[in-house]
Amino acid sequence: MEKAVLITIGDEILSGNTVDTNSNFIATELKNIGIQVTQIFTISDEIDTIKNTLEAAFKVGDLIITTGGLGPTRDDKTKKALAEFFNDEIALDEVTFNHLKNYMERRGRLDILERNKEQAFVPSKSVVFQNHYGTAPCMMMEQDGKLCFSLPGVPYEVKPLIKDQIIPYLKEKFNLYYLHTRIVSVVGIPESILADIIEDWELALPENLALSYLPVGTRVKLRITASGDNENALKQQTEDEIQKLLPLVGDHVIAVSEDKIEKILAEILTERKLTISTAESCTGGELAKMITSNSGSSKYFMGGIVAYATEKKTEILKVSKETVHQFTVVSEQVAGEMAKGCQELFGTDISLSTTGVAGPGRGEDGKEVGTVFYTIRINEKEVTSKLYMPHLERLDFMNFVSQKVIQDLVGLLISE
Amino acid sequence: MEKAVLITIGDEILSGNTVDTNSNFIATELKNIGIQVTQIFTISDEIDTIKNTLEAAFKVGDLIITTGGLGPTRDDKTKKALAEFFNDEIALDEVTFNHLKNYMERRGRLDILERNKEQAFVPSKSVVFQNHYGTAPCMMMEQDGKLCFSLPGVPYEVKPLIKDQIIPYLKEKFNLYYLHTRIVSVVGIPESILADIIEDWELALPENLALSYLPVGTRVKLRITASGDNENALKQQTEDEIQKLLPLVGDHVIAVSEDKIEKILAEILTERKLTISTAESCTGGELAKMITSNSGSSKYFMGGIVAYATEKKTEILKVSKETVHQFTVVSEQVAGEMAKGCQELFGTDISLSTTGVAGPGRGEDGKEVGTVFYTIRINEKEVTSKLYMPHLERLDFMNFVSQKVIQDLVGLLISE
Repeated sequence: MEKAVLITIGDEILSGNTVDTNSNFIATELKNIGIQVTQIFTISDEIDTIKNTLEAAFKVGDLIITTGGLGPTRDDKTKKALAEFFNDEIALDEVTFNHLKNYMERRGRLDILERNKEQAFVPSKSVVFQNHYGTAPCMMMEQDGKLCFSLPGVPYEVKPLIKDQIIPYLKEKFNLYYLHTRIVSVVGIPESILADIIEDWELALPENLALSYLPVGTRVKLRITASGDNENALKQQTEDEIQKLLPLVGDHVIAVSEDKIEKILAEILTERKLTISTAESCTGGELAKMITSNSGSSKYFMGGIVAYATEKKTEILKVSKETVHQFTVVSEQVAGEMAKGCQELFGTDISLSTTGVAGPGRGEDGKEVGTVFYTIRINEKEVTSKLYMPHLERLDFMNFVSQKVIQDLVGLLISE
Repeated sequence: MEKAVLITIGDEILSGNTVDTNSNFIATELKNIGIQVTQIFTISDEIDTIKNTLEAAFKVGDLIITTGGLGPTRDDKTKKALAEFFNDEIALDEVTFNHLKNYMERRGRLDILERNKEQAFVPSKSVVFQNHYGTAPCMMMEQDGKLCFSLPGVPYEVKPLIKDQIIPYLKEKFNLYYLHTRIVSVVGIPESILADIIEDWELALPENLALSYLPVGTRVKLRITASGDNENALKQQTEDEIQKLLPLVGDHVIAVSEDKIEKILAEILTERKLTISTAESCTGGELAKMITSNSGSSKYFMGGIVAYATEKKTEILKVSKETVHQFTVVSEQVAGEMAKGCQELFGTDISLSTTGVAGPGRGEDGKEVGTVFYTIRINEKEVTSKLYMPHLERLDFMNFVSQKVIQDLVGLLISE
């Protein structure tokens, strides 16, 4: 199998200003064609650092992909480092310049063509992959049969370059191994116990199968990756092992194919033709967003409401003022009434509600930060649960709760 | 200034399964006490790789922080690598074991104490920082005056360890330089032109000030970082430079302090005592989530609705069926009526609406993927705009549109 090394260049990640999502995307795409990322270097945009890292990367990888450091501004030095590392000169590439000119023309910005002309200067030995969504082209250099691609850092420029151009190129160029991955989602068993339960199975796995434990909230994802040269054989082999695993874990398995909880939910809802709606308070829209992040969600997600202000809970969701008064707004009872009101408002089979205190400030009724009640309503059936997660930061809290609500719903639907 | 190197251990990131948010958090926290992360290594959980990377890290950093690879399962090998690298033995630490016992007891899980006992074994020379939110402790090793902290990988265990224990420890241990950062947000000027406009100013910056360009959607963030040993002097110096910068960029500056667009919005809304609500279609809750991710948002955010199904737009938001029929649901007119209905429903000064096609499938009325209309309504004033972003993936699209809507709103409020 080919080994890849990613190099992320620029201060944005090192300073904590930006989360590195490019590496995640690239690693996933490469994995799909059987190339494994074995290392990621995140470095600053300095010529010597870039050159040293390229040297280290070429020692461990057959394929190097750098992102970032190619902007038109003074703080970007990657191109210069590339030229020096590969003993090359930077020269104007006419094809790239014409592409740039067309790009600027289409956007009605020919007036700034000259300012961006710099972008059409590339190392003379490089093969250029044109960027259709930005001004910095992707450059490929070859050395001793190993490849080095340099891409800009903007995620929405990186994605099409990787997907539409680099992946197809690599598929054709290399005689690739196959990699087949399956994810088994387990809930309700702590990681350490799970490890104990499946220890014998794990130890007996064939050598070309690798197992990883990936905890997400209260769910543990078991990732099984098989590598080899026959795709169908790998699929069969993985399936066989999963069939041996399932009896060991029993009811705790909520999915054996999809990875993301919103996709697992999507499969069930679509199959059973069920509709769903959400009524959120402390999750602030994250629950709806998680559900709608799945393409095709418009088939089952009718809508949601973020009833932040208490009077909106009573006005729109018909939560009774009496209930709020008696039990406070962060209560089992209000969660239940929110779900009921939501189900009626949107006319759905299922409704979900959350009410809690995301923090860092206390809620208006003095409930402790990290407290949340959530209700899952399926037709006439209703389950309300409480979580207390005081250690989570606001955004993590919103995400954790949303994950847990969907996970519980999946559990309920499966056990029905 | 002290230099830090982060090492992220484990397959989760390399396989593309998980986005590395720990590094982002740690880098930000370290920056706040004047420690700069100069490199991040993301590596697999193999003993030799870990040892080699520790060696490389000690060459460039004074402070090493590793995350991941400390779980109780078979695939975690970090502790063994640490012991080998530091020529140490792994031994049971009684204090850590007692802490673990208490932790398990509080959670009513004493039954699995033995299974987790492994976690109380640490390199004998290490200083342990107890983990209050998980079973794997943080271990600190010292070598030649340099420090190496090893943390578990779970983000909500990492955050309190860093914030409550490691940062205070480092502050006391090192005689730290100060670092002062300001972000100036510029909209409506492409990065390359902006660079041109402020070139003279940039070249004349004092040596202890560094400038970076960070594009986010259609906004460019200029980050100015000053380092030195007098905190107040740094603040004054940065402020002076910003005052020189402002006249050059004029009306295009939307903020000179806060970094995140939702915080910039929060400042304005709070100051002017304005309330806001959202009516979303294609952004699926992301817009509400972005606004509510700011703590204190309950003061100005009254609520939002995700009206995914067309009939919910007409029923709840009172969009006229006639308008939908005549112009289709993805239209300027529907966006406008959604905003109006939303403003009335929630009784707010401002309302925001989005209607579009996030893809990858086409919308029901055949509008092209990537098309979105959004309306910003401030009292009686209403502005509707169109975006066409066919190259963005679903989640990126939802995020980009939400960023842009809030950014436009900020622009409108400032220019009022």
